Amino acid sequence: MTDIRTVAEWLKANDNYVILMHASPDGDAVGSGYGLCRALIKLGKRVRCLCDDPIPARYGYMLSGVSSDEFEPEHVIAVDLADTKLLGSLQEGYADKIELCIDHHISNRICCPMLLLDGNASAACEVMYDLILELGCRIDADIAACLYTGIATDTGCFKFSNTSASTHIVAARLIDAGAPHAEINRVMFDTKSRARLEVERMVLDSIEYHFDNRCAIITVTDGMQNMTTPDDLEGITSLSRQIEGVEVGLTFRHRGPDKYKVSVRTLESVDASAICARLGGGGHMRAAGCEVELPINEAKKAVLKAVAEEMGISCKD
Amino acid sequence: MTDIRTVAEWLKANDNYVILMHASPDGDAVGSGYGLCRALIKLGKRVRCLCDDPIPARYGYMLSGVSSDEFEPEHVIAVDLADTKLLGSLQEGYADKIELCIDHHISNRICCPMLLLDGNASAACEVMYDLILELGCRIDADIAACLYTGIATDTGCFKFSNTSASTHIVAARLIDAGAPHAEINRVMFDTKSRARLEVERMVLDSIEYHFDNRCAIITVTDGMQNMTTPDDLEGITSLSRQIEGVEVGLTFRHRGPDKYKVSVRTLESVDASAICARLGGGGHMRAAGCEVELPINEAKKAVLKAVAEEMGISCKD
Repeated sequence: MTDIRTVAEWLKANDNYVILMHASPDGDAVGSGYGLCRALIKLGKRVRCLCDDPIPARYGYMLSGVSSDEFEPEHVIAVDLADTKLLGSLQEGYADKIELCIDHHISNRICCPMLLLDGNASAACEVMYDLILELGCRIDADIAACLYTGIATDTGCFKFSNTSASTHIVAARLIDAGAPHAEINRVMFDTKSRARLEVERMVLDSIEYHFDNRCAIITVTDGMQNMTTPDDLEGITSLSRQIEGVEVGLTFRHRGPDKYKVSVRTLESVDASAICARLGGGGHMRAAGCEVELPINEAKKAVLKAVAEEMGISCKD
Repeated sequence: MTDIRTVAEWLKANDNYVILMHASPDGDAVGSGYGLCRALIKLGKRVRCLCDDPIPARYGYMLSGVSSDEFEPEHVIAVDLADTKLLGSLQEGYADKIELCIDHHISNRICCPMLLLDGNASAACEVMYDLILELGCRIDADIAACLYTGIATDTGCFKFSNTSASTHIVAARLIDAGAPHAEINRVMFDTKSRARLEVERMVLDSIEYHFDNRCAIITVTDGMQNMTTPDDLEGITSLSRQIEGVEVGLTFRHRGPDKYKVSVRTLESVDASAICARLGGGGHMRAAGCEVELPINEAKKAVLKAVAEEMGISCKD
């Protein structure tokens, strides 16, 4: 662990940086990566961002106008990265070369000379905000757009419990700095692909209720997974728990012949990890998972039995 | 128009208040009403809230623990009220007795001795936050929950363009004061009734695309309206414009034999009010409406023709 002043001094004293983002990059990875990249460029540094996957088009505005001359990288920085495994194929060339990692995951497992980690921050972008100020760099509208994006996407637009008073204070300053917040939020939260809508329609068609509607099951078939990107399926799992009165939401995803990945989401009253432990899985109190190798109807029966036992009700379904 | 200090002095100098909320109360009406009510009670005043409709159950926590002895009301206050028509049946006894109105709608049409109006505030609760501080009342966790609710619901959880830097600053202070923000947001934004889910399913089934997918139509039938409350249908109209690539989203709601209310939602590129003007309706640049008295297929043809003309494309659909 290191402190923000040490990191700022190191960044100012050196040059020729590579910034690594995790594969399947999300708003916080791209926002913290390009936010830092833009700040370092303003300080006259040479820097480029690297990611194993293409940056999704809806994040394009964060990359816009950023370019760099060819240069030989000297220092490797990772952002929003909890584990080098998440680098994908960039692991090979870079995993053991990371000098600085800037992150907010309390589960962070990166070993590197400088780990700037704030487990209370909602997003890597919240850490980055303080770091960029410490660098003495004015946060312009482009940097603000990057940092706002990471914070908004990682907090579900300030909806989730990882949002703190400090998160809102940073958001206020980023809006003051010119982040086009309403437009960013429209793209991130109010735009759905047709494939996503089609999956939602099929998922809604698939809902089953059990135990006096206290448990809901949704099923994601092979067909749905083939017609969509993983991006389109994001958040589908949480749908099952959003239904009024439902305490346990189960999502069955087809993973192979008679093989299902089961996501369990619960309200406070039920322990999701205990349900999954009965089936060889695990997780957290309110979000857990397991795999079941059975035909779909038997798979559902097995999971419902575990749910019933955990909820202390008799399993008549 | 009056200023916050005058209002605070008046509230402290008097007693026996009635606070009016508009009919079909939303989070901001209930939050600003009960937020002020709780603050005045802490100052030793007698006060009660009145609304023409029952307060929806999901707002119940704001009312919890608030009670008052019987008393003869002396002063009438209205909150989040832009027009006395919105009082419903309370108009009769109270419309001409309002002494103070606290609001954020720039369209406010209330005539009363004291109008405390901030058109830049995202919610009446944002105005109320400043007023309660001016009253010298400490904002406790219960008041914070009320004010946070109004701000979160009126801004779509900080998503809409009415959210300002000041909105986030107030949210930060309310979280510091103990507002259970994550739980409030779960109830307001991540809980859907089964009727709502069923309507979403049917609406998704009904989507039609026109003009190379630049225009989408969703249809809300009589059947859907009968199985739901207006609350369940809230926001359905915005769905049509959320689809990637769609510039014009049309929602047809059945209103009687061969009669449809049409809501038009557009991206920046298209003028919704111009489309509706061609059909005898009107509204704003990006949200407008009209009524069409034709059988459904002819109604759609007529509206699509107006859309095509406005978009400058030939209507082959």
